[in-house]
Amino acid sequence: MPTATDQLPAVHRQIVYAQRPHGTPTADCFQLATVPLQPPAPGQVLVRNDVLSVDPYIRMRMEEKDSYAPVMAIGDVLVGRTVAQVVDSRAEGFAPGDWVVGRLGWQDYSLAAPGELQKIDITAAPATAYLGALGSTGITAWVGLMAFGQPKAGETVLVSAASGAVGSVVGQLARLQGCRAVGIAGGAAKCELVREAYGFDDCVDYKAPDFAEALRRAVPQGVDVYFDNVGGPILDTVLPLLNNFSRVPVCGLVSQYNATEPYGVKNLREIFNRRVTMRGFVLSDHRDLWPRATQALAEAYAAGRLHYRETIAEGLENAPQAFIDMLAGANVGKQLVRLRAA
Amino acid sequence: MPTATDQLPAVHRQIVYAQRPHGTPTADCFQLATVPLQPPAPGQVLVRNDVLSVDPYIRMRMEEKDSYAPVMAIGDVLVGRTVAQVVDSRAEGFAPGDWVVGRLGWQDYSLAAPGELQKIDITAAPATAYLGALGSTGITAWVGLMAFGQPKAGETVLVSAASGAVGSVVGQLARLQGCRAVGIAGGAAKCELVREAYGFDDCVDYKAPDFAEALRRAVPQGVDVYFDNVGGPILDTVLPLLNNFSRVPVCGLVSQYNATEPYGVKNLREIFNRRVTMRGFVLSDHRDLWPRATQALAEAYAAGRLHYRETIAEGLENAPQAFIDMLAGANVGKQLVRLRAA
Repeated sequence: MPTATDQLPAVHRQIVYAQRPHGTPTADCFQLATVPLQPPAPGQVLVRNDVLSVDPYIRMRMEEKDSYAPVMAIGDVLVGRTVAQVVDSRAEGFAPGDWVVGRLGWQDYSLAAPGELQKIDITAAPATAYLGALGSTGITAWVGLMAFGQPKAGETVLVSAASGAVGSVVGQLARLQGCRAVGIAGGAAKCELVREAYGFDDCVDYKAPDFAEALRRAVPQGVDVYFDNVGGPILDTVLPLLNNFSRVPVCGLVSQYNATEPYGVKNLREIFNRRVTMRGFVLSDHRDLWPRATQALAEAYAAGRLHYRETIAEGLENAPQAFIDMLAGANVGKQLVRLRAA
Repeated sequence: MPTATDQLPAVHRQIVYAQRPHGTPTADCFQLATVPLQPPAPGQVLVRNDVLSVDPYIRMRMEEKDSYAPVMAIGDVLVGRTVAQVVDSRAEGFAPGDWVVGRLGWQDYSLAAPGELQKIDITAAPATAYLGALGSTGITAWVGLMAFGQPKAGETVLVSAASGAVGSVVGQLARLQGCRAVGIAGGAAKCELVREAYGFDDCVDYKAPDFAEALRRAVPQGVDVYFDNVGGPILDTVLPLLNNFSRVPVCGLVSQYNATEPYGVKNLREIFNRRVTMRGFVLSDHRDLWPRATQALAEAYAAGRLHYRETIAEGLENAPQAFIDMLAGANVGKQLVRLRAA
């Protein structure tokens, strides 16, 4: 009887980091490579990656200087989380056919230690949900909003990149807390999605010429929590709308990742005037909160109160372009790449 | 036998707010007025102001828009804290001769309710110390550093405007916590004062051409707490030196008060990269902490571990210029104005 490994190809494909971008990444920052496929060593699990998640944080890993996470070296396989299926296991607790998520990279197959894998239940929700609303994206939203935003019923929660994977969950969690949820997104179509699909109370288009005035009208009681995914000029527009003792969890600065000249934020005096607490956070620092977050998200999903969208590109070879497009805001919801043809 | 009131003049002097400044305040923003002196009504205390404190926050009250505190109206007596002596009292607990501090304004005499006055012990420390290191200035330093900076022994505490009334106390309190205390000040003379008189481990001159590099050398372990009094370009220089999980209590933004065009802060991405908590605070929000702060400051002073300097101008009529000079950094330590000739 053939084992899973017997059916494996001799080689598989990876996307490796070929050169550092100056500003916006281009196709030549990435290289498709074909490499031998190794069987698992004792204690290892071999998985076949099914769907890859491409996320803004990867851009920070492409810098020359460390940010919150070490940078990638030229020649590294690009980092990224996937949902995957175990094809061979020499580690206890994992068997062929098991579904897992992990930071398994831009490649067809991955070898992993059990500690790098998390089993998922694909009968409770679609597998890709565990890369998004029920996975690290949703947990990021929960930790930033609940632990650092600390919204109270009746307060106004504003979130930028509201149609994105994190932002859309932030608004839905805010509504579940009894807050007014207002989004900021780029373009009328995304704003409609934020209001209709995710149920925000309002959403404002930052590309519209009257953005600042429209935003002011959308938060008549001011802003108690600004969940910031973008930084830059949008942050500058929000700062004067902050209420006394408001909280600004900073989840990312996507507007600045590709910027060769950083934007200068002019309205920081509001941090002082309004006694604002602004706090950068990174999910990996708060593993203690993951179980609570995971449970809250699963309950919201099971109750039909957590909606998400996905944009799925097809094929590992198209992952670089999907990543570049995502940084430009072309995606709706979570940007994924299907690695294994359905 | 004559009562205190019998000896009072019929009129006294005030400085009233004459016009709003555009940028740096000028002499014509202030007007010296002579007004009748009223005796105390039942429940009131009449005090003669001895020494006035002029502070950066007053500049914010001169704006057209409210900041954390309501703005002054044209025609108002300028706000400011004084040490004063009771000359007549129709309120319980206050008798002629008592020394008090309070926000009693730029004027020779003031009428106040008992709740607006705090008695001081001028045998424990000079009266003017209660306007500075043992008063709201010292309490501001304590609250910002201890409650929001949360320094731990061995950490590096950096403070801007280090030769100023608040900054000099911050560094001394940091040293008492077992921290490395590093100051930023303008010019070699102020830096020497910070090192020699206040005992900071180091102080860096922001006016020197190699400021950024010198600052980097002065904090070889990075910065765990940046107590910010100034904002603007100095904040931008400090941001890349912050350690992971560092804290930035924002006590003021004196570099920006007179700015007609606010400076754009470019390195805010470090808030995210380094998971920084930046928090604006205002002393009046934290009255619950005042008793602890007052006690800690009095103990440090009694132990000879709390040093301060004063710059004293003479005469109410010179208060506007003293205020303008203080905003430009001409003072050493606390800027005071003696209202009653010695």
